[in-house]
Amino acid sequence: MESLRDCKLPIDRIHSILEGGDANARHVLNIYQDLERDGILSSRFDEYDMSTEETRELTAVRIDRLTQYLETESFEDFFKRLNIVTVYDMSLGIRISINLGLFLNCIKGNGTDEQVQYWSYTREAESIKQVYGCFAMTELGHGSNVAGCETTATFDKETDQFIINTPHIGATKWWIGGAAHSATHSVCYARLLVEGKDYGVKIFVVPLRDSKHDLLPGISIGDIGSKMGRHGVDNGWIQYTNVKIPRHFMLQKWCKVDRQGNVKLPPLEQLSYISLLGGRVYMAIDSYRICARFVTIALRYASVRRQFGNTILDYPLHQKRLLPWLAITYAMAIGTQKLDQQLKGIYQGEDVIKRAKALFIDSASLKSTCTWLAADCIDQCRQACGGHGYSAYNGFGRAYDDWVVQCTWEGDNTVLSLSVAKSMKDRKPIDYKLELFSVDGVLKAVESLLSKIDSPVQISKLKCHYYLLSSFKEKLIPELEPLINVYGYFILETFPFIEYEIVEPKLQRSFNKEYTKELTKVRPLAIDYTDCFKQTDNLLNSAIGQYNLKVYENYFRVVKTQNPPHKTSPDYLPKFLGMLNR
Amino acid sequence: MESLRDCKLPIDRIHSILEGGDANARHVLNIYQDLERDGILSSRFDEYDMSTEETRELTAVRIDRLTQYLETESFEDFFKRLNIVTVYDMSLGIRISINLGLFLNCIKGNGTDEQVQYWSYTREAESIKQVYGCFAMTELGHGSNVAGCETTATFDKETDQFIINTPHIGATKWWIGGAAHSATHSVCYARLLVEGKDYGVKIFVVPLRDSKHDLLPGISIGDIGSKMGRHGVDNGWIQYTNVKIPRHFMLQKWCKVDRQGNVKLPPLEQLSYISLLGGRVYMAIDSYRICARFVTIALRYASVRRQFGNTILDYPLHQKRLLPWLAITYAMAIGTQKLDQQLKGIYQGEDVIKRAKALFIDSASLKSTCTWLAADCIDQCRQACGGHGYSAYNGFGRAYDDWVVQCTWEGDNTVLSLSVAKSMKDRKPIDYKLELFSVDGVLKAVESLLSKIDSPVQISKLKCHYYLLSSFKEKLIPELEPLINVYGYFILETFPFIEYEIVEPKLQRSFNKEYTKELTKVRPLAIDYTDCFKQTDNLLNSAIGQYNLKVYENYFRVVKTQNPPHKTSPDYLPKFLGMLNR
Repeated sequence: MESLRDCKLPIDRIHSILEGGDANARHVLNIYQDLERDGILSSRFDEYDMSTEETRELTAVRIDRLTQYLETESFEDFFKRLNIVTVYDMSLGIRISINLGLFLNCIKGNGTDEQVQYWSYTREAESIKQVYGCFAMTELGHGSNVAGCETTATFDKETDQFIINTPHIGATKWWIGGAAHSATHSVCYARLLVEGKDYGVKIFVVPLRDSKHDLLPGISIGDIGSKMGRHGVDNGWIQYTNVKIPRHFMLQKWCKVDRQGNVKLPPLEQLSYISLLGGRVYMAIDSYRICARFVTIALRYASVRRQFGNTILDYPLHQKRLLPWLAITYAMAIGTQKLDQQLKGIYQGEDVIKRAKALFIDSASLKSTCTWLAADCIDQCRQACGGHGYSAYNGFGRAYDDWVVQCTWEGDNTVLSLSVAKSMKDRKPIDYKLELFSVDGVLKAVESLLSKIDSPVQISKLKCHYYLLSSFKEKLIPELEPLINVYGYFILETFPFIEYEIVEPKLQRSFNKEYTKELTKVRPLAIDYTDCFKQTDNLLNSAIGQYNLKVYENYFRVVKTQNPPHKTSPDYLPKFLGMLNR
Repeated sequence: MESLRDCKLPIDRIHSILEGGDANARHVLNIYQDLERDGILSSRFDEYDMSTEETRELTAVRIDRLTQYLETESFEDFFKRLNIVTVYDMSLGIRISINLGLFLNCIKGNGTDEQVQYWSYTREAESIKQVYGCFAMTELGHGSNVAGCETTATFDKETDQFIINTPHIGATKWWIGGAAHSATHSVCYARLLVEGKDYGVKIFVVPLRDSKHDLLPGISIGDIGSKMGRHGVDNGWIQYTNVKIPRHFMLQKWCKVDRQGNVKLPPLEQLSYISLLGGRVYMAIDSYRICARFVTIALRYASVRRQFGNTILDYPLHQKRLLPWLAITYAMAIGTQKLDQQLKGIYQGEDVIKRAKALFIDSASLKSTCTWLAADCIDQCRQACGGHGYSAYNGFGRAYDDWVVQCTWEGDNTVLSLSVAKSMKDRKPIDYKLELFSVDGVLKAVESLLSKIDSPVQISKLKCHYYLLSSFKEKLIPELEPLINVYGYFILETFPFIEYEIVEPKLQRSFNKEYTKELTKVRPLAIDYTDCFKQTDNLLNSAIGQYNLKVYENYFRVVKTQNPPHKTSPDYLPKFLGMLNR
């Protein structure tokens, strides 16, 4: 990075707040530097020009490179690294997360100690050796509804095996990341059938490929084909045709089937879902980092771009478009740290069930709200960059296309909102009237609205904003006051406080004016606030977003490098000229 | 198309209303059939798997095919055809629109009769022969701000020529569609400089390539490279280095420069912008067709997809997600016909200026609001299809990526909103209180809110909704009443009527309930309402959206056809296996 510009803010202190303490902040910066210097892992502008095949090859090479770190650092540190590389290579991130996160966590969360020992260490899945797993839950006809899975696992007492079968097209496992080319094994969600009785959906490890990486008998797999984004991921479909697996390939921590076919069901079925919550927590954290990336790019551009005589960021309309996202990003950074702490403490002490339930709700609310906000943020930041937001080299298009699936997978956002709302069905209305703007007042107003409103999606969103705003307040320092206020005004503007008579119409109109004023306080510090994220040019991977603010020079250079102007005549030109000269 | 299912609605009558009369409706159906039967122009699922190079070649071949129609039908009919093919091939649409629309319209709107005669007929630009034009307005450092162009056109009295020059990087013509490979000529927006005096931005025809299609001296061109979408368009950048053109290559209908360098400025500079309004009108119309496409797909899928026992369209939450878009699409269909009439009548009778000003405002309001709505519609419909919305073969991803640039080009939506708001700066507040839901009541409420609200973007949107809702009301038949009501409730929910005390909070809460009820009235007719669009499977080009409603069979077949399962081993696999077996 070039010599740093002056920052009017205590940049290191703020960065430490954003990353959850000095040690974490230093760790993050070390990873930024590792990635920037690594010839394979560092971002490149030519990624934006690659075909699907080239992207998949790059992803495979990067997986190989990343696994080397797995041998030198802790699992927790490795996941931090993975989260950060995900900011610019979401395909890479999810490919490893499916294997080490979904597949292996599923075994750890649902397998007996012997089973965990076997798959993680004996078979070396933990080091990404020999075994590469995929997560075969979703079916063509059943998305978020796990209980509706139709794949069957029939116990064959005679041979002490389960027979895994896909009964019809709708039960085909679908969207399975890693299945098309990479995975050697699947964790397969299937209905346990013993002597004609259906015990509901349980989990089975089903091998897919042999040691030469050829498909095993009874396994049919195909590539799911072209997608909106995530071109580096080999999503596939799987059909099982009477595939036999030994009885001990069923994960038996909670539900057990013995040699005689006696089934012991778990005390609390939900416990098997704890292993899925980590993914949701990480998606909320990812939302912070991706928003920080695009807020940085859009604000840097807006601070340089001139129109009708002024820098566009000096226009109140442009401030209103971008600066709330800056405030939301700060709130997400701080709030999702707290969620991460909740996850890490889940098994510590008594009352695991109670904490798991709370985390289930909080992670559902934050995953859905933050991933939606991030999709909006990327899109709004793109639009705020005008036409240049449409260039692939500025990063928006690919990030949006890669990102939005976060709103759908591991719990569709709308379905998650329903769970959140369901958990609050015994609310008592809390009456409150906001008289004057303050962060505490906004929190009380949100509580009141939450107690009265019906829409499940609104309930889930409000719960998330309460969580983020109250976390932000706990860590507040004077330099961040304008941002927390902007965030508060954003909440007031976005939800129907007037409709539920918590805010008077006249008061909201005066809030609108105060909001505009608060934005003008943020304006002179906008670039400094983004510098506090400390995201490197390598992470941003955006021609118009680079630290040196030489927007047009950087952009033109990237366009010329990627598309050398001496190549003026593409292969299809003769056809075009034939028409023109007909 | 297979045998038609029963429709509980008067399908032909409604289709006629949607398309503006029986003759238009028949014409549209004829074009649908032409396109479906044409081997080159018909849509294909393999388009979703093509690389940029393949997409560009396909686009060139399709341009060639389309130009054949140009020789057998009227310009107006040809543009109708072009608008319709744009529903599934936006790159094709815009490539021809740049040439016949922007380039040629610019000459027609700003050239003298002799100039129009010369370029359109002598040089055959009207038949897409010899001349292929591009529209060189936008510069790297200046997007929507035409008056800020920095390219110069200096009159050289000695040789009776203009010298066109790009003074610095920021003045490089940027995003110019067709420039990278195709265009032979540009209409170039540049500052007229005569004897040191700057007369502002005028328009010049500047040749780019010679008869062998090589770049002319002084012309530097490169490909703009990878973009979010529109991969079939060869956007380029252009730098002019002291390029000499004859004086009569300046378009001189409004501003004239004679042999001696005397400059005669036009009475009303704005007249030169009328030629740009057609593009905006067409983008509003396109919004209807693209919304119809994705509303059809999402509703068909929702009518088949089952979750937790029910068809998902039976859930009120899902009705709320999708059915308002159906209503908005109907309103757009009817409202944008009216806008089209306004455009066609612009030069008929006295008061061209007055009509042009009205059209300037209406088209700005409808272009910005409808293109934004359409972007949201595609995205919301995608999300409503869950994971399957993310598959390229269902059409959403490519359409979104191709579409969203409509919100930016030919007048950035936010900048257009500012123009609309500016035209209304002398408003007097109109007091109105809505007491009961009715379409007339909503119209009055919108008028009242429009008279009071400050946000330029909200003003522009409200003006558009007023236009659409009142047009819809004019053409209302009983069978469409549930839809117009849903549209009315949507407007009430979306804008701050309570904040401006036009609707009481309590009343809005009761509207919410009525809204839900109205949606349940639309539900049983939802598929019939989409059938009334009569969009063919060819137009939809979506595996899950086909008319026969065999969602999973169609989808699985397309995935398997595009990705034959016997190809299981991609080129990059050895690298991956090297890692796994290390």
